[in-house]
Amino acid sequence: MTIGSNMTKLVTYTSGDRPSLGAVQGDLIIDLARANSAFPQDVPSGDGWTADSVSFLSAGAPALQALKNVIENVSRLDAADARRDVLLVQSASVRLLPPIPAPPKIICVGRNYGKHAEEAGRPISEIPIIFARFAKTLVAPGDNVVVPHVSHQLDWEGELAVIIGKPGRYISRQNALDHVAGYSIFNDVTVRDYQFRITQYTAGKNFSHTGPFGPYLVLRDEITDPHALQITTTLNGEVVQSGNTREMLFDIPAIIEHLSEFIDLEPGDVIPMGTPAGVGFTRKPPRFLRNGDVITVEIEGLGALSNPVVDERELA
Amino acid sequence: MTIGSNMTKLVTYTSGDRPSLGAVQGDLIIDLARANSAFPQDVPSGDGWTADSVSFLSAGAPALQALKNVIENVSRLDAADARRDVLLVQSASVRLLPPIPAPPKIICVGRNYGKHAEEAGRPISEIPIIFARFAKTLVAPGDNVVVPHVSHQLDWEGELAVIIGKPGRYISRQNALDHVAGYSIFNDVTVRDYQFRITQYTAGKNFSHTGPFGPYLVLRDEITDPHALQITTTLNGEVVQSGNTREMLFDIPAIIEHLSEFIDLEPGDVIPMGTPAGVGFTRKPPRFLRNGDVITVEIEGLGALSNPVVDERELA
Repeated sequence: MTIGSNMTKLVTYTSGDRPSLGAVQGDLIIDLARANSAFPQDVPSGDGWTADSVSFLSAGAPALQALKNVIENVSRLDAADARRDVLLVQSASVRLLPPIPAPPKIICVGRNYGKHAEEAGRPISEIPIIFARFAKTLVAPGDNVVVPHVSHQLDWEGELAVIIGKPGRYISRQNALDHVAGYSIFNDVTVRDYQFRITQYTAGKNFSHTGPFGPYLVLRDEITDPHALQITTTLNGEVVQSGNTREMLFDIPAIIEHLSEFIDLEPGDVIPMGTPAGVGFTRKPPRFLRNGDVITVEIEGLGALSNPVVDERELA
Repeated sequence: MTIGSNMTKLVTYTSGDRPSLGAVQGDLIIDLARANSAFPQDVPSGDGWTADSVSFLSAGAPALQALKNVIENVSRLDAADARRDVLLVQSASVRLLPPIPAPPKIICVGRNYGKHAEEAGRPISEIPIIFARFAKTLVAPGDNVVVPHVSHQLDWEGELAVIIGKPGRYISRQNALDHVAGYSIFNDVTVRDYQFRITQYTAGKNFSHTGPFGPYLVLRDEITDPHALQITTTLNGEVVQSGNTREMLFDIPAIIEHLSEFIDLEPGDVIPMGTPAGVGFTRKPPRFLRNGDVITVEIEGLGALSNPVVDERELA
């Protein structure tokens, strides 16, 4: 095992018991709570930094250093060292959860790519369009997106997700990236008839089982330029969205400045940054997600987020 | 001390240390975790039912029975019993927090009183207008509502808050009240220019320090008819809103049916039900909240929620 470019991809996973925080190392995951027991780190906020991803982010820079230290210690273990069996698990043997299972906030940006505004026949807004998602809508990587029986208009929206690390209010654009802990992928699956029949997006954006998020929390230092990432959505293997984060109308600093104008940002807040062109409802004929589909969002450097689609009536 | 009509008013409070869950008894509060230690109750989910209000609600009917039992046991203690000093605190000596400090969701209903829609010059909507508030905006009873330096258009909205106890999806109107744990008061303080400059209400409804909530979680059985409660908002002692929950366009069962059509409701979810006529921005001239004001919302049977208003620049 080598410490490579993947040393700072974090996951939240279960192997039957309670959720654990892990660091991805190739096909293996380091169990960070156990690694911290084997190689105790001096983090001012205590051992809680390994409890979950929000605790990790809340512990700040000392936790980042502790993470690097335990990864280095584990990576130096001899291949025959029995501790490896305790500290490492096979990725294939665990179930991933969203990298932040219960974010303090999920604050979404709407209509943030010009071509998507155009395909939707909507004007570009001079003020960011912001709506909220509840954590209860989150879907783990590989888990089912569910088509409810009350609507068939389930539509995909592949998005870059920004994860807040450092808390703050009234954050300037200049300092905004200091508040970013890292990045992930979000599929802001939307129920179109519920979204458009009324001005507020709340219902259309908050159906249960419509918020795929993950697979990793990729720490900021891994991504050279978050505004130059290819983003691709495929439906059953066919490319339906292909864009680049450089096309965002409001970039990450602009959005952080705007959001922190009204609310305190907190460690673990998730900001899905809007979707490029190529959603389903603007196609002729419209194409919505249906039972048996597989929808996958891939972003350069952040991996792939893939979810099967199941009709609720099939689950009964 | 007698067991009276106030036996099922719950509060979350601190006396310097971590938050505690308490039951109000006149001028006293029973510390429920300590009361459960003194008079152990058999709740299937364990002693966690006293940890916080969401744990209490999640524990369901057995926790309700346990609550009644410990209140009865404490009330029978002889006035000279030294245990009273451990199990009871003076209300005046503690600081109240919101009755649910971190609700899983705060799901707000907009424009739900006809006269308020009329004063705002907006049509009545055939579909409930739903928007989200983040828990980070909550303000404890008596704590400051803060006027931000970016806007002076802070406006009051006194509202009945419904608290969910029993989880569920696709809840029918007939069964809806079974899912209600109780009621409280919410002041859905709104920054009007941020609300109306764009279709989505998110920013205008989510300024930090704009969500007074409390003082009590009044359990459902205490309220004979939640659709017949006088609701009064006073600004510096002057009545500015006077309405009755019978005027709500969508009643509690209709809203629970609507919300659960898209999302799973969870114990601890808070649903502010909309505000009657009499807000500040529709007055001639408009009246907004400013430094030194005191804004109070009172609802029959639920007590009064009073908060001073402070300009952010005064806090610096």
